[in-house]
Amino acid sequence: MAKLTEEAKGVYVIAVTPFTDEGALDLDSVDSMVDFYEAAGVSGITVLGQLGEAPKLTSAESSLVVERMLKRLNGRLPVVVGVSAPGLAPMTELAEKVMDQGAAGVMVAPPWTTKTDDQSFAFYQSVGEALGEIPFVLQDYPLTTNVTIAPKVIERIVREVPNCVMLKHEDWPGLSKISALRAGSAKGETRRISILCGNGGLFLPEEMSRGADGAMTGFCFPEMMVGVVNAFADGKVERAHDIFDAYLPLARYEQQQGIGLAARKYVLAKRGAIKSGALRKPRPVLSAADIADVERLLARQAIRLKEIGA
Amino acid sequence: MAKLTEEAKGVYVIAVTPFTDEGALDLDSVDSMVDFYEAAGVSGITVLGQLGEAPKLTSAESSLVVERMLKRLNGRLPVVVGVSAPGLAPMTELAEKVMDQGAAGVMVAPPWTTKTDDQSFAFYQSVGEALGEIPFVLQDYPLTTNVTIAPKVIERIVREVPNCVMLKHEDWPGLSKISALRAGSAKGETRRISILCGNGGLFLPEEMSRGADGAMTGFCFPEMMVGVVNAFADGKVERAHDIFDAYLPLARYEQQQGIGLAARKYVLAKRGAIKSGALRKPRPVLSAADIADVERLLARQAIRLKEIGA
Amino acid sequence: MAKLTEEAKGVYVIAVTPFTDEGALDLDSVDSMVDFYEAAGVSGITVLGQLGEAPKLTSAESSLVVERMLKRLNGRLPVVVGVSAPGLAPMTELAEKVMDQGAAGVMVAPPWTTKTDDQSFAFYQSVGEALGEIPFVLQDYPLTTNVTIAPKVIERIVREVPNCVMLKHEDWPGLSKISALRAGSAKGETRRISILCGNGGLFLPEEMSRGADGAMTGFCFPEMMVGVVNAFADGKVERAHDIFDAYLPLARYEQQQGIGLAARKYVLAKRGAIKSGALRKPRPVLSAADIADVERLLARQAIRLKEIGA
Amino acid sequence: MAKLTEEAKGVYVIAVTPFTDEGALDLDSVDSMVDFYEAAGVSGITVLGQLGEAPKLTSAESSLVVERMLKRLNGRLPVVVGVSAPGLAPMTELAEKVMDQGAAGVMVAPPWTTKTDDQSFAFYQSVGEALGEIPFVLQDYPLTTNVTIAPKVIERIVREVPNCVMLKHEDWPGLSKISALRAGSAKGETRRISILCGNGGLFLPEEMSRGADGAMTGFCFPEMMVGVVNAFADGKVERAHDIFDAYLPLARYEQQQGIGLAARKYVLAKRGAIKSGALRKPRPVLSAADIADVERLLARQAIRLKEIGA
Repeated sequence: MAKLTEEAKGVYVIAVTPFTDEGALDLDSVDSMVDFYEAAGVSGITVLGQLGEAPKLTSAESSLVVERMLKRLNGRLPVVVGVSAPGLAPMTELAEKVMDQGAAGVMVAPPWTTKTDDQSFAFYQSVGEALGEIPFVLQDYPLTTNVTIAPKVIERIVREVPNCVMLKHEDWPGLSKISALRAGSAKGETRRISILCGNGGLFLPEEMSRGADGAMTGFCFPEMMVGVVNAFADGKVERAHDIFDAYLPLARYEQQQGIGLAARKYVLAKRGAIKSGALRKPRPVLSAADIADVERLLARQAIRLKEIGA
Repeated sequence: MAKLTEEAKGVYVIAVTPFTDEGALDLDSVDSMVDFYEAAGVSGITVLGQLGEAPKLTSAESSLVVERMLKRLNGRLPVVVGVSAPGLAPMTELAEKVMDQGAAGVMVAPPWTTKTDDQSFAFYQSVGEALGEIPFVLQDYPLTTNVTIAPKVIERIVREVPNCVMLKHEDWPGLSKISALRAGSAKGETRRISILCGNGGLFLPEEMSRGADGAMTGFCFPEMMVGVVNAFADGKVERAHDIFDAYLPLARYEQQQGIGLAARKYVLAKRGAIKSGALRKPRPVLSAADIADVERLLARQAIRLKEIGA
Repeated sequence: MAKLTEEAKGVYVIAVTPFTDEGALDLDSVDSMVDFYEAAGVSGITVLGQLGEAPKLTSAESSLVVERMLKRLNGRLPVVVGVSAPGLAPMTELAEKVMDQGAAGVMVAPPWTTKTDDQSFAFYQSVGEALGEIPFVLQDYPLTTNVTIAPKVIERIVREVPNCVMLKHEDWPGLSKISALRAGSAKGETRRISILCGNGGLFLPEEMSRGADGAMTGFCFPEMMVGVVNAFADGKVERAHDIFDAYLPLARYEQQQGIGLAARKYVLAKRGAIKSGALRKPRPVLSAADIADVERLLARQAIRLKEIGA
Repeated sequence: MAKLTEEAKGVYVIAVTPFTDEGALDLDSVDSMVDFYEAAGVSGITVLGQLGEAPKLTSAESSLVVERMLKRLNGRLPVVVGVSAPGLAPMTELAEKVMDQGAAGVMVAPPWTTKTDDQSFAFYQSVGEALGEIPFVLQDYPLTTNVTIAPKVIERIVREVPNCVMLKHEDWPGLSKISALRAGSAKGETRRISILCGNGGLFLPEEMSRGADGAMTGFCFPEMMVGVVNAFADGKVERAHDIFDAYLPLARYEQQQGIGLAARKYVLAKRGAIKSGALRKPRPVLSAADIADVERLLARQAIRLKEIGA
């Protein structure tokens, strides 16, 4: 498989982990989920991120998920694997393993003990050295990691750590950070790396306006992100907003902690991407009122999409 | 002025603090802002909350703002004043002062040192005792306070602390918390207190469906919250969602940390509610790109509102 | 190997992870370290805790360390293995593996997402179920986990989760928590579980006075903890304090974040317990001034120990 | 009163706030406490810090405490007043007021929203501008503020903000930070400012070895800090450690959260510095076991002090 580069763009959807109602890993649903994402027009898939249910997997199970996904994709789309770990050795061990399996690159978030600018830089410098030839994504997610990385620190990393090829941008929402990074690369001060945005897609049109290359997030209608990114590629900004606005009420609902992931899997199961929407324990479970909320949002969304011809 | 009671409902808008471009307190704009909120149909006004710019005021300035607002309102609408402080003595001192000035009640958030269920209860028990006859709002805002208060703890507070008359609900988004509290009062296990919701209004229709009495938040189009609450009162749930959806893209934009408040004041100034949208230093300043974002959202919102006849 | 029970007492020393100067795992030093701890009179050894350098190991390396340690001990002392993980499946997988290898029990800390009393209880209930017959230690370490577990919640866990047999007490310093738990078991309201104390041993005499059964911490002179615990067993409280006071200046120095662990390994290497005091990267390194501090403290400690005849 | 300068050294004791058993402010005890501290040989007094009970005071009460203290001291010792506030306006208001009353300088901690190096610098730059001619102490206390300020950022502040004259050093324990700052000023790269250390005095001898000018902390035996600082001034390092070691068991006990302050006031009341050791509600209360701990430590400390002839 080709390795991840600074040229990456489009939608790298963050995959959920499919389980049966009883909590067993559902590898068949990995296949259907991959097909579903591919049909939605994504440009890549990200697995084993920090959030979601990857931490609930045994290491053997994690390996099975990556293997199955890579087999099903058969090289048609690149896969990025989250390898954040408390130490460089386990991180590198996992990174080398998944690259051998055929992954395109890995993603690394900073440890919560990172406090100062120099510590952020030093961490990613050591990550770059440890990973060697493996390209990696800098996961900038202050809300969860509690680590804020200033634009100039990211620029220093980009200058001095050549295998940092992508920023997963999730500094809520941090539009000015995108602007600052793009200003720096436009002036030739830094390499222009790929910037894909998270935040559940909730700021995607504005992020694209600032120079993002796409999205890396897991909203249950990846066609929203694909539609917005493509409309921007075609220079149709208002169209991008029309598509975005139609999906926004549901995307917002999915941003709830805990129950949001249950809502995402509920919709993915309903859409046939996975067999069961169940989470593995310990898990939040949708109440009847939650399901009523989601169903109303789906019904309204379908109407609105028809109105705008999408 | 009548005191705040469990019967409170509708929209208690969270007021911004108006400054001149140079950073001086702009008391004339307190008048115009109050008129603006009143014209939008709000049921009450909340001032000196934890967020926003109240902490940038000297105590003398805070007092002037409350006084001016109460004078302008002349008893037509109730005012709730945020009085959270690190100790009971300064909290009670401020509470007594604003009640003397004519406030209807006060709002209190827990200190970040609160960790266990019993500590949460003990804090609000001591607040209730210290405030005596003054009715207060329990501000439940884990994202900022880092204190999570379980529904059963709120119920215990409601049972044992009679002057707790309202919950400002801001447990992101915590729909199940509203359901749990309403189930408890429906069964007669606890008093039914007022529940007004925050979160920038981003979940208002769902919150109303679960039994909330309205909103307490500061979105720059308070008519959104008023419209949603009124539609629910009329039993028109889909209409409530139509109104909500039209404003959602802007409401979402306003939820950005720092720059969101600048966007809110920009719009309020543009709408004539206040003279200047400037924040007092230290402050975020909207970039040209930020302003372009807001203007686009305003233009699209106006079109959509016309489409739905609102 | 016999399983860990509520009867456990004495000193369960927290082992360091020995590396060569180049950062390779030093398994020979696992042997010498085990011998060193055993000669110091400890009652058990704890490995793979949350702090220290265990997270820097690959899973294969972790397994080698546990295996080597168990082989060297040959059943003479019980080994407790830290198995905290973000999900129940990887936790259980590791727990079952180390129990098969011959560990006596495992230790589990709560995830940082735990907020309310009921969440703390629910977590440990699900841990208890998942572990089945495996006895576990509840690691109560708010300073690192950011989770505070009230005494009454621990008591509920003790009542309803039978395989919780020990509390690693590290609620800084939480003397009243020990008193509360012992009062409960003295009245017959709860099982009396083992309580071993952490906090670097800095409050050991007071913790023993409140009813602790010993220490679980890694101070580089385990004979301090052994001496204090034995003196208490003999009813010689002042003697316990004499021993404690002699070591306190160094124990305090070892409590520094980062550099403290480097100091601990420096002393252990100097004492022959391990070959090299080096930490694996990323790592703090002792400066000349740090080493001068430690040497002065060692020299003064030796004098004081002679003065008190210890 | 002379203003605080970079030349400040010795012990600036952090004063407690005296209350009666009923919780009223005890101004008579302000007098006796000031006399007690002066007799112990301190070089200055710090009031209204972030910790302790200052936040429990009304603003009127705070003012009374400062006024009474300044009157009693009558210019014999400098007083530093904590003025940290969420905004520059209330901070400056309080600072100007206490300087008018006769304070020598003020102390300012960063807000918890400070994340990056540039934000730390920008905050103190704006503080410096707002305070104008008023000298201030940079309070570096990551454990409480959650803001870590790297040495090079402090150096930038020292270079560009002339009224920053002192560092209250409390980066647990941060010995290398002192070394770095002193290396910078020794090379003439930065002004040499005063460095006084906190951390309850628990690392005072090592901090003095690294170039600190003294202590700013509130241990109930200020003669410990005075003794250590004076011994260092006389070049008697071992003597400094002897004094320190004799007090360390109690100083350590006082470092407990909550109950530690109650222990400090208990001893100060017992020593006649203040009339009552009571804290104002909400407050921790010493149990019989806590008091027994303190009494044992006092008794042992007295014996040890006699042994070393101090």
